[in-house]
Amino acid sequence: MVQLWDGIELDRTSNQPLYQQLEAHIEKLINDGSLPAGAKLPASRDLASKLGINRNTVTSAYDALVTKTRVHSHVGQGTFVAEPGRDATPETPSRMRWSFSRAALAARDRFRSPAEETHHPDPINFATMVPDEELFPVEPFRVVLDEVLARQGKQLLQYGPAAGYPPLRSYIAERLARRGVKATPENVLVVNGSQQALDLICRTLLDPEDPVVLESPTYTSVLPLLAQYRAEIEEIPMTARGMDLDALEASLTRSRPKLLFTMPTFHNPTGITMDLASRERLVDMATRHGVPVIEDDFDSELRFDGEPLPPLKAFDDKECVVHIGTFSKGLFPGLRLGWIVAPTAFVDTLGRSKLISDYHTSLLLQAAVLAFCERGHYDIHLERLAGIYREKSRVLIAALEKYFPDDVTWTHPEGGFAVWITLPKTLSVDAILSEAVADGVLFTPGEHFFAHGDGRRFLRLSISRVPVERIAEGVQRLGNILRRSSGHDSSGAGSREPEPALHI
Amino acid sequence: MVQLWDGIELDRTSNQPLYQQLEAHIEKLINDGSLPAGAKLPASRDLASKLGINRNTVTSAYDALVTKTRVHSHVGQGTFVAEPGRDATPETPSRMRWSFSRAALAARDRFRSPAEETHHPDPINFATMVPDEELFPVEPFRVVLDEVLARQGKQLLQYGPAAGYPPLRSYIAERLARRGVKATPENVLVVNGSQQALDLICRTLLDPEDPVVLESPTYTSVLPLLAQYRAEIEEIPMTARGMDLDALEASLTRSRPKLLFTMPTFHNPTGITMDLASRERLVDMATRHGVPVIEDDFDSELRFDGEPLPPLKAFDDKECVVHIGTFSKGLFPGLRLGWIVAPTAFVDTLGRSKLISDYHTSLLLQAAVLAFCERGHYDIHLERLAGIYREKSRVLIAALEKYFPDDVTWTHPEGGFAVWITLPKTLSVDAILSEAVADGVLFTPGEHFFAHGDGRRFLRLSISRVPVERIAEGVQRLGNILRRSSGHDSSGAGSREPEPALHI
Repeated sequence: MVQLWDGIELDRTSNQPLYQQLEAHIEKLINDGSLPAGAKLPASRDLASKLGINRNTVTSAYDALVTKTRVHSHVGQGTFVAEPGRDATPETPSRMRWSFSRAALAARDRFRSPAEETHHPDPINFATMVPDEELFPVEPFRVVLDEVLARQGKQLLQYGPAAGYPPLRSYIAERLARRGVKATPENVLVVNGSQQALDLICRTLLDPEDPVVLESPTYTSVLPLLAQYRAEIEEIPMTARGMDLDALEASLTRSRPKLLFTMPTFHNPTGITMDLASRERLVDMATRHGVPVIEDDFDSELRFDGEPLPPLKAFDDKECVVHIGTFSKGLFPGLRLGWIVAPTAFVDTLGRSKLISDYHTSLLLQAAVLAFCERGHYDIHLERLAGIYREKSRVLIAALEKYFPDDVTWTHPEGGFAVWITLPKTLSVDAILSEAVADGVLFTPGEHFFAHGDGRRFLRLSISRVPVERIAEGVQRLGNILRRSSGHDSSGAGSREPEPALHI
Repeated sequence: MVQLWDGIELDRTSNQPLYQQLEAHIEKLINDGSLPAGAKLPASRDLASKLGINRNTVTSAYDALVTKTRVHSHVGQGTFVAEPGRDATPETPSRMRWSFSRAALAARDRFRSPAEETHHPDPINFATMVPDEELFPVEPFRVVLDEVLARQGKQLLQYGPAAGYPPLRSYIAERLARRGVKATPENVLVVNGSQQALDLICRTLLDPEDPVVLESPTYTSVLPLLAQYRAEIEEIPMTARGMDLDALEASLTRSRPKLLFTMPTFHNPTGITMDLASRERLVDMATRHGVPVIEDDFDSELRFDGEPLPPLKAFDDKECVVHIGTFSKGLFPGLRLGWIVAPTAFVDTLGRSKLISDYHTSLLLQAAVLAFCERGHYDIHLERLAGIYREKSRVLIAALEKYFPDDVTWTHPEGGFAVWITLPKTLSVDAILSEAVADGVLFTPGEHFFAHGDGRRFLRLSISRVPVERIAEGVQRLGNILRRSSGHDSSGAGSREPEPALHI
């Protein structure tokens, strides 16, 4: 069995999606009798680990074989090669065969695996960055929503401008002015959260095979998006002060990417914040090389102490920075409300992309959030959140110091939810994941955050939904697993993983 | 001057957008001295008409020349060739030069011209399909919105599933069952209005240069969208009973398109409804040829008399129909709330496209609309709207019969807002448009609705925002212009326009 699967080689440079390559390999094994009827296919996680690919790629290949009736799947039992007779009637297609775009297929390979589930009676979940809804300021929002609807209902339920509700555009421009950004309301485009911001920017700038530069590790959800636009990703390592600017300069000197994507503040997944001098240097570098910088400023207002830093956009004299913000982390994720601040030369074309996508974002929600902000509720809420996350972060770091082995390291974020853990060379996430799930401690494996390479020496802990009084216990459980697994890793991570890119 | 512009030939088959071709032509004329400094460029409408292209293509070319400082523009005066000195300093780029994707540039050529504006003191606007906000049931909606927020605020302001709020998905499936559609909640995907539905479907199915079949004329906003996905459009003429199915059969026999887009009910812009036998035949034909049918069912509930017809989806035994619906026409456009009902084989990939686009649609708005529907408010409101539009339509048709010349013909819609007017061969919209604007009667020129060809013998009248008591007066003003212009058309429409595609 081992030899059977060792022979599979997947070509990451091929135009054919990985899951289709795998599907074809397995079908060949079935056709040549290597996999007889009734044979059980490996569990998706095992095969993914063996082949060094995303687990979702394996499940997509299995799904495709199920559709073709070459294999069948039983929940809780596994996936088995079908009886020969079962695939004998494909010539009477009683149903439409759907054929998807190359873009959709390319994206499909890049979705993250579903989150781990645990049957532990008392789980502690460090795996999610979803904000805690128990902290939502529902009541003051309900009041302002009702008021704006009573006052301007007809207008707010009618079609509106693609670029957004004008008073909210003005407010966003003014709010950013506090952080040193020079923007007029005309530079602001309101969108359905930062994911749509990224989608519209990609749509407006990227052709297939265009090179794109981003941090390694990076935001998980940008990877299927870039795959869909069929961009060629180049990863720049992170340092303790943000993206490695020497590596970036070398990269930009070699070739000019179509855009550069960065999270300079409370970077996801590492929590790292780029210092002011580096911000200035990054913008200067991008300006010299003529590269648009896409700044995802998704949670900079969740700073534990002091005022939020000036974003890259504040250093943008030559208009090369596109700034993305959102109300998802600091207020309500479910509103789907965010914004883009873009140079005049870009904002008009971006607005047309918004029109094509969905015309505009709900005026009612825009007006309600504006009223919420103007009455001061938003700033009060942000201050409250910062206090809560400051305390959670303090408790987390103290627990890491107390319970984690000495050869494990972590970042020290100044805000946001995420802390990034680096395991010693001898240990991989794979070695501890199933034990952690069994012990009811969930985290996000590092592999989710890398465009290339598997990231198995890293994991992300998020404090957004863990009650402060459970943090130490969760870290203790994890620490125990790490100690038990240390030196007993059988996955070969030490030999397969290149030196970690994160210089901390 | 006439000769100067006669020499311009644009290549519609080229990969270079039309506006860039025009821009290059004009720049050549400036460089070789044919257009000296200070020379005035033709008005965009005149040049567009002369070259047989969309006016927006001309304004895009002029805009590009303004950016390059080759020409300058003065509102109310026109566009003039710049002094030679003005373009002498392009070598010091003080600002980022933005380079857009081929997709964004292709879409840009396809946006409709801005609506005409009139300075008439008492205008009558038949040009817009935007619903009348004076009819919005704001108060009952305000009540249910407040209730759902009070009851489930935390849940509704949190992240939600990409496919939509589960109870709303169930409701949509049940509501469609009344019209003969077999759909489970799992077949339903909630989206931000029908424009996003179309975008997600294109994203999931179309590669560049894929052929797409649609009705001629068709919905304006689908054209820039398809241009953005760089689809190759084939137009099928409309008959009085909907898309010409003989022409469609011939087309599908020649080659298989990637999708077929149709509006079988109260088609926009013609108002035509496809009869039941044709619906069945269309679905059968698509099934035989293996072509996905995208059914845009945007306003079928606004039927003047009787129950809404079974949509194409009701005949879809073989799962080839993707059904699009929306709350924009029957309720509130500004909510941006619509849905897709798709076969199981398609809905999962479509859901991933939704995730990539913007994660999900606001749960709060979904829950509020569901509560609104479940209390019966929606059906009451639809009945009220149907009565109002029935009366407006009756008044419009009576006025057309009374005031329009005998050689002008029109459709007789069974619901919706639009009536489609066909002028005699000797007359073109261009000949009457400026007079109509001066007389304060706005309508939409036919050219907006054709992918190829200029449609200058057609125009659309929409009654959505014209008060019932002003309809006859508006038609009378237009009728007078038509009588005055009849036989005095200097645009050469009679010789240039092919036989109209609409057999009514």
